Amino acid sequence: MALKPWEEKAKSARDYRDSTLSKVEPPFPPLPDPLPLSSQDLPKQYLTAREYELTQNYDAVELLQMLRTKQVTSEELTKAFLRRAALAQYALNCVTELMWDEAIERAKYLDSLPEPVGPLHGLPISVKEHHSMFGEKTTNHASYVAWIGTPGATNPVNDYLYDAGCVYYARTTGPQTLMALECDNNIYGKTVNPWNRNLTSGGSSGGEGALVGFKGSVLGLGGDIGGSVRAPASNNGVYGFKPTTKRIPGKGMKHVAAGKESIHGTIGPLAQSRETINLFMKTILDNEPWRHDAGLTVKPWTPETITAPLKVAIEWHDGVVKPHPPVIRALQMVADACKAAGMDVVDWEPYKHDKAWDIVSGLYFPDGGEAILAPIKESGEPIMPLTKFIVEQPNVKNRTMHEYWDLCVERDTYRDEYAAHWSSMAESGKEVDVIICPTTPGAAPLHDTATYWPYTSQWNLLDYPAAVFPVTFVDPDKDKKDENYVPMNDQDKYNYDLYDPQKWVGAPVSLTIVGRRQMDEKVMAALELVEKAMGRK
Amino acid sequence: MALKPWEEKAKSARDYRDSTLSKVEPPFPPLPDPLPLSSQDLPKQYLTAREYELTQNYDAVELLQMLRTKQVTSEELTKAFLRRAALAQYALNCVTELMWDEAIERAKYLDSLPEPVGPLHGLPISVKEHHSMFGEKTTNHASYVAWIGTPGATNPVNDYLYDAGCVYYARTTGPQTLMALECDNNIYGKTVNPWNRNLTSGGSSGGEGALVGFKGSVLGLGGDIGGSVRAPASNNGVYGFKPTTKRIPGKGMKHVAAGKESIHGTIGPLAQSRETINLFMKTILDNEPWRHDAGLTVKPWTPETITAPLKVAIEWHDGVVKPHPPVIRALQMVADACKAAGMDVVDWEPYKHDKAWDIVSGLYFPDGGEAILAPIKESGEPIMPLTKFIVEQPNVKNRTMHEYWDLCVERDTYRDEYAAHWSSMAESGKEVDVIICPTTPGAAPLHDTATYWPYTSQWNLLDYPAAVFPVTFVDPDKDKKDENYVPMNDQDKYNYDLYDPQKWVGAPVSLTIVGRRQMDEKVMAALELVEKAMGRK
Repeated sequence: MALKPWEEKAKSARDYRDSTLSKVEPPFPPLPDPLPLSSQDLPKQYLTAREYELTQNYDAVELLQMLRTKQVTSEELTKAFLRRAALAQYALNCVTELMWDEAIERAKYLDSLPEPVGPLHGLPISVKEHHSMFGEKTTNHASYVAWIGTPGATNPVNDYLYDAGCVYYARTTGPQTLMALECDNNIYGKTVNPWNRNLTSGGSSGGEGALVGFKGSVLGLGGDIGGSVRAPASNNGVYGFKPTTKRIPGKGMKHVAAGKESIHGTIGPLAQSRETINLFMKTILDNEPWRHDAGLTVKPWTPETITAPLKVAIEWHDGVVKPHPPVIRALQMVADACKAAGMDVVDWEPYKHDKAWDIVSGLYFPDGGEAILAPIKESGEPIMPLTKFIVEQPNVKNRTMHEYWDLCVERDTYRDEYAAHWSSMAESGKEVDVIICPTTPGAAPLHDTATYWPYTSQWNLLDYPAAVFPVTFVDPDKDKKDENYVPMNDQDKYNYDLYDPQKWVGAPVSLTIVGRRQMDEKVMAALELVEKAMGRK
Repeated sequence: MALKPWEEKAKSARDYRDSTLSKVEPPFPPLPDPLPLSSQDLPKQYLTAREYELTQNYDAVELLQMLRTKQVTSEELTKAFLRRAALAQYALNCVTELMWDEAIERAKYLDSLPEPVGPLHGLPISVKEHHSMFGEKTTNHASYVAWIGTPGATNPVNDYLYDAGCVYYARTTGPQTLMALECDNNIYGKTVNPWNRNLTSGGSSGGEGALVGFKGSVLGLGGDIGGSVRAPASNNGVYGFKPTTKRIPGKGMKHVAAGKESIHGTIGPLAQSRETINLFMKTILDNEPWRHDAGLTVKPWTPETITAPLKVAIEWHDGVVKPHPPVIRALQMVADACKAAGMDVVDWEPYKHDKAWDIVSGLYFPDGGEAILAPIKESGEPIMPLTKFIVEQPNVKNRTMHEYWDLCVERDTYRDEYAAHWSSMAESGKEVDVIICPTTPGAAPLHDTATYWPYTSQWNLLDYPAAVFPVTFVDPDKDKKDENYVPMNDQDKYNYDLYDPQKWVGAPVSLTIVGRRQMDEKVMAALELVEKAMGRK
């Protein structure tokens, strides 16, 4: 049967992707069919020992040290990550373009220089397709069929990292509209989770999540307006950071509603370690990006040292949907570790998180979703279920200008109320420094079920910095379902009914640490203390 | 003839104002009829010697020192300012309410305390009516007849200052819609300039401008979204500061389009001295207002010290309208003083200021002015000429949501271009620290002629901090009209044709010093250097 025009177009993007994959040298023998539930054992089987060692064992900070001391060349390292990224594509379907020739050429060039060009000299970095690429390489479809082959804009973040010496080698998938916490689109289909292919890698930076979770990347760039860095980081058991908006330049991403400022998004990193996040933030802010992107906050990356005992509040649930048992267990593990380390650990009382969802969902689409659906209509590609789900949220309406402004007032009022709520907890003693909370209401969701955004979108609405860190893995023996659980409401019932520990075998469980707005450095400093309390470095 | 309902309502506000003025003790004998062109000699004639001395000779910083050392009580000082403010009302029509009893009661209370309650202990402060008042005293009409007698919201800035020990004693006028650079409304009529009553006191903080220019206040609070602090400060020969937005809380002001965030306004001070501005900023930011107003920048007031020679760029004109001769002379005076003090003085090249006006005027009223005109229609009060003028600007249109977002993108693009423009001037040497530019295209405008906003609105569009400082006075001998001047365009012709030095006798001439966004402290530090170069303290 002849392909429809949109299908032809989608196929052209896949063909292009495959042509870039065909460069891989040496090519891989066929992968197992069917693929195993977890992809985590594939690299050892399909990579050379040296490739495996280089990609498996180090974070970006360690690799940079090895590059500086010539324990590895950028070329060798880049080829290793190119090969592992190709393997990730075969196993997980997370890559839109493998930059084989360009990356190796770049790596060789960097190796030829007598001195490092910058702090990331020789380090391979992956980037979400939505973000465009470096310099003039901007062709970008943002997961819309209609936009395949269209030029995008230069992305200052990518250019800063390039100037700092990185090597771009892979671009990665996102979901249709990019407004989804999963990663499925009509061009490439589903990206799956490297720990359990029945689970989603998350979204919208789901390609990055899968690739970093597969250790096909030590530093990947995603974007977050509702959870799009944090959900994939969490689902794939890696670190992720959503800074306060207006710290990191936001240009270069293709938007249907540029100019809408009701809820801002931000670029954020997914990484193998906490210190990679700090390195990323410092590298970007050392460029004084506010001198180019006039809306940014004028503030260098200013690491903090916390001396007084940390006061941590645990958000056990958001008052609407209770997380699955593995998440509760992870919260308990971290709370216990913090207490044992002498921290003051209290319970966080969520403040009207249900109302927050009404506000933020309305503000995502004040035109009722018209702009975000337009490229779908343009190409004729089908509207996917999670797209339909999000634009049909009860408070998504096509508003008049004045109704839109009124909703922005509701947003500001809620933000002020939340600030007062946080301050009020200081009236009896020291103020809470950070909240530790679920990233999502469970480990990585089963495909096509990730409909509960508020655990992540809450911090977009409030514009609070939030870092994701891995804690543990689902353990069916420990994380039993409570068959007598009485749900608080329909949403809670939906979420709890999904849970079956056997379906989540091997899935990572991660948590989020949140600080007050613009306290980005404090969040990262607090995360260091929490991880040390957990016995990490 | 019977009054129309809106006229009745307007009269009720005037009656209320007059009732508050009737408390003045002792009352004033009748003022000259007609009133003199300049009101500056009236205080010496109508106040006691002590009242005159207290109000005439000191800035807020000096008065606070006198209060602390008991050289004056708050009661004596407050009564002196109450009497001078009453005189200002009779001469200039700038007061909407004189808080005689409340202010004296407050001053007595403060005098009775063994220790100061805060850094402003005992200091009388005046506030624009639009800003509400302190605590529960919020009735506020924002110069709309329809809103007379309606409650407003508490204003955190006023409350911070109150908590710091100030005494509120006068509320002041603004123009219809508050979107005007003059001060005329259907409730009170015109506020006139204390230096020359044929000139406007400016707007929208025109009551504060007149009162501070008459020395009826050492510190008055205004607001600025298009020049509303700076034009009145400039017109009346006093200091004024428009900080970068999101430093000072913006709540408490009654808005027709709250929630619109295309162009933000900010509260700013009008004052007798530069150091009063620094005191104001520090006093507000010492409250950590970002803990309550969740959209504010988290940054204390952080005074800067500039050690390298200052690099000053002079904007002689904006490429569209050339300022009147007194302003050019003032620019030359300051440029010469800066050069003589060893500063690097260069010419500023304006970047598309005409396009900037198109963008900012469109963004003021993305609904075509519907919201701002609604309360006028509600009461039936007439639309005033400057209201009509501003909502009929060529780029003011009733836009669709998507057209509105597109214009916001134009704004952001222009902001980035201007940032690049500023940076580009650093390519050949040190970057420009500050721009010194006209505040308005002449001294205080003749009534009903202040239609050229771009000298002030430029820095609202860019959100650059800008401080106004007095420089000189119009001197018909020096500031002759160039009868051979060839205007650059129609707007320039309109402005130049207005000029006749004889009409501006006695008018102050002020300038503005501007820094890059969020460089508020640097602007104030640079102003100190410039004023010292001018031989001031």
